[in-house]
Amino acid sequence: MSRNPLPSRTDSPNFRVYHEQVDLRTKERVQFIDLTELVAERVIRSGITHGTVQIQTRHTTAAIVINENEPLLIQDLQELLELWAPADVDYRHDDFGSRKSPFTMDERVNGDAHARAILLGCSKSLNVVDGRIDLGRWQRIFLVELDGARKRYTSIVVMGVTDERASRRESPAEFEHAPLRGVS
Amino acid sequence: MSRNPLPSRTDSPNFRVYHEQVDLRTKERVQFIDLTELVAERVIRSGITHGTVQIQTRHTTAAIVINENEPLLIQDLQELLELWAPADVDYRHDDFGSRKSPFTMDERVNGDAHARAILLGCSKSLNVVDGRIDLGRWQRIFLVELDGARKRYTSIVVMGVTDERASRRESPAEFEHAPLRGVS
Amino acid sequence: MSRNPLPSRTDSPNFRVYHEQVDLRTKERVQFIDLTELVAERVIRSGITHGTVQIQTRHTTAAIVINENEPLLIQDLQELLELWAPADVDYRHDDFGSRKSPFTMDERVNGDAHARAILLGCSKSLNVVDGRIDLGRWQRIFLVELDGARKRYTSIVVMGVTDERASRRESPAEFEHAPLRGVS
Repeated sequence: MSRNPLPSRTDSPNFRVYHEQVDLRTKERVQFIDLTELVAERVIRSGITHGTVQIQTRHTTAAIVINENEPLLIQDLQELLELWAPADVDYRHDDFGSRKSPFTMDERVNGDAHARAILLGCSKSLNVVDGRIDLGRWQRIFLVELDGARKRYTSIVVMGVTDERASRRESPAEFEHAPLRGVS
Repeated sequence: MSRNPLPSRTDSPNFRVYHEQVDLRTKERVQFIDLTELVAERVIRSGITHGTVQIQTRHTTAAIVINENEPLLIQDLQELLELWAPADVDYRHDDFGSRKSPFTMDERVNGDAHARAILLGCSKSLNVVDGRIDLGRWQRIFLVELDGARKRYTSIVVMGVTDERASRRESPAEFEHAPLRGVS
Repeated sequence: MSRNPLPSRTDSPNFRVYHEQVDLRTKERVQFIDLTELVAERVIRSGITHGTVQIQTRHTTAAIVINENEPLLIQDLQELLELWAPADVDYRHDDFGSRKSPFTMDERVNGDAHARAILLGCSKSLNVVDGRIDLGRWQRIFLVELDGARKRYTSIVVMGVTDERASRRESPAEFEHAPLRGVS
């Protein structure tokens, strides 16, 4: 009854690393930008069939998150960010007069954004199987802007093997009754 | 006095990607399922000696977490989830009448589960060294069910090199007094 | 006007995995230790030009975090940890009399540290591009001690390709007006 893909073990001389940086200009202070199609396109461009894709924001007040793209849920998350790291609290980081480290002329009051970015994380990595991101039905990839509007740089690395012919499906005992499925 | 393994640098023509999807049926709404032995077994099956293993849940209301398997700590975590994203709050996501996106007939009230899944994260990646997951003494891998009972799909990718003979240990100056240790 | 690096696709027979464990003795109960230079040095030692670097603490009461190294922000984070998982709460994990699992003679009251470690995560992975960690201007890598002072083991794996000559830059249509940049 299992509709699982069989386990696969791919040896290949064709190991590849694909890198691309994608720039986006955000519009709101807090904004969820769905990058799923953009990342999926880079996985296809990479030609990599089995491996991983890592999406990394190069900022300390933005994050990468995987979850459902449902507009009301996104509104919930904006409220949850207030619970997790309130905007109306005095963060020491925003007391520019006390700062010893250099700060730029366009420094913003953004202690909340740093705290939220730490909670959500700046990079996420997902499995790549049969040439596609191994996302579940509802999973989507978001760049989360926490201190916009800004220009944001997202670094994408796809890493793995490219030679489908070198792929071979295994059929260990526990899978022997499952229908065979070729590498698509 | 250092009992550290020496740094290792492994060049190999035998690069491999191993993938397997594992299905589990959870029993409780919130449940911590220890996947450590299952994942360790897949690392052994993969034959990969040095690289990484990435464990990804393919759901938006489940998570992967690394920590200690101590039953009282697991109870603490169930209470902490209430602190981080309470179950008894009205999430907009659960107001089905206002939803514009499609929802399924078996839609559940689970705004809390999405919020918790975002905090905990859907995938974790760990280092693989000398053929084993490089876990510390107390570290265990958990699938965290946040909206069960359900059938859950976990995607595991082990990626790295397989040829131990191609491995060579380095002994830079700062390590020269440490005892040599072969690749086991 | 784009100053982005062009997308790169690197095929190479020189796939490499570099591993090193780094030991540090922490001094405070909660302490942020900047590992950026240490990790950057290991990426250089690895000789890997394109791929990923994964930093993993081998403990359940420590974490790896990426954010800005600004002293006042670090103070903010110490207070936020109190918000996220208070130290002055009775965790069941700390009720040693009720524990069924074995515990060591040096067991500490550290339920808060476990909770904080779960929120922050035990490993982070970053992209490696052109021989360097693809960090943004303000991004730094921290080991976060949550139950010190202790000796802590950090496992670092750099994985990817090493042969720069095998690298080839692509210039798809949307990048054709960008200035060419060689692999440095």
